[in-house]
Amino acid sequence: MATLGFIEYSDSSPEVRAVYDDIMRTRNTDWINNFWKALAHDPASLRRTWQSVKEIMAPGALDPLTKEMIYLAVSASNQCGYCIASHTAAARKAGMTDSMLSELMAVVGMANESNRLASGYQVEIDEQFKPR
Amino acid sequence: MATLGFIEYSDSSPEVRAVYDDIMRTRNTDWINNFWKALAHDPASLRRTWQSVKEIMAPGALDPLTKEMIYLAVSASNQCGYCIASHTAAARKAGMTDSMLSELMAVVGMANESNRLASGYQVEIDEQFKPR
Amino acid sequence: MATLGFIEYSDSSPEVRAVYDDIMRTRNTDWINNFWKALAHDPASLRRTWQSVKEIMAPGALDPLTKEMIYLAVSASNQCGYCIASHTAAARKAGMTDSMLSELMAVVGMANESNRLASGYQVEIDEQFKPR
Amino acid sequence: MATLGFIEYSDSSPEVRAVYDDIMRTRNTDWINNFWKALAHDPASLRRTWQSVKEIMAPGALDPLTKEMIYLAVSASNQCGYCIASHTAAARKAGMTDSMLSELMAVVGMANESNRLASGYQVEIDEQFKPR
Amino acid sequence: MATLGFIEYSDSSPEVRAVYDDIMRTRNTDWINNFWKALAHDPASLRRTWQSVKEIMAPGALDPLTKEMIYLAVSASNQCGYCIASHTAAARKAGMTDSMLSELMAVVGMANESNRLASGYQVEIDEQFKPR
Amino acid sequence: MATLGFIEYSDSSPEVRAVYDDIMRTRNTDWINNFWKALAHDPASLRRTWQSVKEIMAPGALDPLTKEMIYLAVSASNQCGYCIASHTAAARKAGMTDSMLSELMAVVGMANESNRLASGYQVEIDEQFKPR
Repeated sequence: MATLGFIEYSDSSPEVRAVYDDIMRTRNTDWINNFWKALAHDPASLRRTWQSVKEIMAPGALDPLTKEMIYLAVSASNQCGYCIASHTAAARKAGMTDSMLSELMAVVGMANESNRLASGYQVEIDEQFKPR
Repeated sequence: MATLGFIEYSDSSPEVRAVYDDIMRTRNTDWINNFWKALAHDPASLRRTWQSVKEIMAPGALDPLTKEMIYLAVSASNQCGYCIASHTAAARKAGMTDSMLSELMAVVGMANESNRLASGYQVEIDEQFKPR
Repeated sequence: MATLGFIEYSDSSPEVRAVYDDIMRTRNTDWINNFWKALAHDPASLRRTWQSVKEIMAPGALDPLTKEMIYLAVSASNQCGYCIASHTAAARKAGMTDSMLSELMAVVGMANESNRLASGYQVEIDEQFKPR
Repeated sequence: MATLGFIEYSDSSPEVRAVYDDIMRTRNTDWINNFWKALAHDPASLRRTWQSVKEIMAPGALDPLTKEMIYLAVSASNQCGYCIASHTAAARKAGMTDSMLSELMAVVGMANESNRLASGYQVEIDEQFKPR
Repeated sequence: MATLGFIEYSDSSPEVRAVYDDIMRTRNTDWINNFWKALAHDPASLRRTWQSVKEIMAPGALDPLTKEMIYLAVSASNQCGYCIASHTAAARKAGMTDSMLSELMAVVGMANESNRLASGYQVEIDEQFKPR
Repeated sequence: MATLGFIEYSDSSPEVRAVYDDIMRTRNTDWINNFWKALAHDPASLRRTWQSVKEIMAPGALDPLTKEMIYLAVSASNQCGYCIASHTAAARKAGMTDSMLSELMAVVGMANESNRLASGYQVEIDEQFKPR
C-alpha cells in the first residue's frame, strides 16, 4: 500500500497531474505505476525524480534498451523487488528478449561473485588499470 | 598484495599455466591481471571462475560491449574498487567511449536512488508488473 | 512466521519475560513486536540486543527523533522490509511528520546515488577531507 | 585521479563554471571538491546532480544538520570511502560535534545489525506496522 | 512465480533433465526447488550454476555443514529472502541445530555492525594485518 | 588515521584502559588494533561493542574457528577492507588454513551470485522452505 498511500490521477493536484501527464506521454502508456503515486505526496520529489529519470533514460550515447538493461541489472544486484518487477517490464517493452534477460542475469551473478573474490582476497589494483 | 600473494606466470604449475594461457589467448593480451594471480593459489577456483567468465562474457544474445558495461555497472553499484578499475578498462577495450561511461554511471546512480525510494516508501508491486 | 517461530509473553521464561517487561516499560507500549519474539529463542541474544538498542537509542548528544530517523534511513538504504515498517512506526511515534519522512527519503535516495557516482568514477579523497 | 580526470575551475567551460560558481556560493566556500570535478566531464550530469543536491539539502521540514547526518549515516552504511570523508566534513561544518558523530555511528551500526537479524530470522511484519 | 516461470521435470528437455537428475541424486532428494526450475529456461546457466554449486559445496578443507552455514550467513547478510529460506533448510539438513542457527545469526549481526563502525570511522588497516 | 584519531593505551582513561586490558587478556595478545583505538573516543560504545563481540565470539554451539570464518565471510561479502584484513588474521590465528580460506571465499562468491539470480528472476519461495 506504500507508507503514505497512493495519489490517484483523479485526486491529484494540478502540479502532480502535470507530471503524471508527462510520464504517460513520454512512456506512451495510459496508466501511472505505484512508484510515482507513492512519491506524489511530495510533489517536489515527484517532479525532480521524474525529470532526472526522463533526462537520464533518454537516448544518447547509449540506446534506451541498453539503459533499461543496466537499470535492471543494478536493481537485480540490489535485490529491490519492486524495481526488478517494474524494470523487467520496462526492458521487455524496450526490446529485451528472454535470452537477453538470461544473459543479463548471468552477468549480474558473475559480477557479484567476482566482486567478492577480488575484495575478499584483498587484490591490489594493477598499475595498468589505474586512472591516469 | 592480496591475502595469499600472487602466482606469477613463471612460477605457475602446468594446471595454472594452462588457464593463464587461455585467458591471454581469449582476451588477446600478453599479461595476466592480479585477480587471476591471486586466485591461482586455488587452481580449482581459478579454472572454474575463468570458465564461467569466459562462457558468460562470450557473444550471445547480448554483445560483448553490452556485457562489459553491465559488469561495470554492477561493480560500480557494489563499490568494488578493484572491479571498477579492471572493468572500466575492459569496457573501454570493448568500445565504451567517455560519453557512454558517463551515461552508464548516471543510470547506475539513478537506479540506486530509485531502488531506495521504492523500498523506503514500501511501494507495492503493481499487478501489471507481476510475473505470470 | 520467522524461522524459529515466536515466543509469546504468556509462554515466556522469567528471563525472557524480564526483557519483554523492560521493552514495554521503556517504550511505553503494551505489546511486543515480532522482532523480539523471534529473537527470544536465544535469550542471551535477546537480552544483549535489547540492552544495546536501549542504550544506543536513549537521548544523548542526539535526540530520540533524530536517532529514529537515522535508523529508518539506514533501514531504507539497506532495503530491510521489516525494519522499514517498524522504524517508520517508531519514528512517527517520536514525532516524524509526513514531510520529514519525504525529505528523509529524498536524502537517502540522493546519498545512494552520489555514493555510486563517487565510487564509480573512482574519485580520490580530497586532502581537505582526510582525517588528521 | 578519477576515471576521466578532474576539470579544474580554470579549464572549465562557461556551463561548468556556472555550476562551480553556484556550488561555492551556496556552500560559502572558495574551492570545488573532487566529486564535482570528476563529474564535470558530463556537464548535464554535473548540473542535474548539483541541482538535486541543492534542492534536497536545503532547509525544509528537516534542518540542514539533520540532513547532513542522514547523508553521512547512509554513506557509512554503504561504506563509500569518498562519501564518508566528504560528508563527515560537511556535517561537522553544519554543527555535528564529536559526540554526535559517535552516537550517529552507533545507530548506524545497530541498524545494520538488527536489519540482518530481522531478515535472517525471516521475521514477519506485524499487522500494526503495515501501511494502511 | 519467477520472471520466466518454472520448468517442471515432466516438461524438461533431456539437457535440463540430466541436471535435475544430478541435483536430486547429489542432494539425495526427490524434488527440485524453484531456483533451478526458474534458471532452466537458460540451460547453459542451469548447467554451469549447478556444476559450480556442486563443486564448491562438496566436502574439502571445510565440511559441508560449515559451507552451508557460510552460505546462509552471506544470504542473511545480503537479505535475500529466497536464499535465507532455502539455505536455512539446507543447513538444517546438514546438521545445523537451533542453537547453531542463533549463534550464526548473532555473528552475522555483529559483523554487519562492526563493518560499518570500521568504515564509518575511517579506520586505517594496522600494519600487522596487511597481507605480505 | 580514523576520523577522531586513535587513543593509545598510554593515553587512555581508566575506563578505556580496563577494556583494552580485557581485550588483550581475552585474545591473548599484547597490542590493541586500530578498530578499538578509533572507537575509544566514545567509551560507552567501546565497552558495549567489546562486550558484545566477546560474548558472541565465545565458544558455544559453534566453535571459535567457525565463528571467525563466518565473520570473515560476511566482511568479504560486505567488502569492508579493514574487516577483511583483521578477520583474515583472526581466523588464521584460530586455525584457518590457506585451503580453508580459499574454500570460504568460493562459498562467499557463489552465495553472492546465486542470491542475485534468485532475486533477479523473482523466484518464489517453495512451500517446503517456508518457516512454520
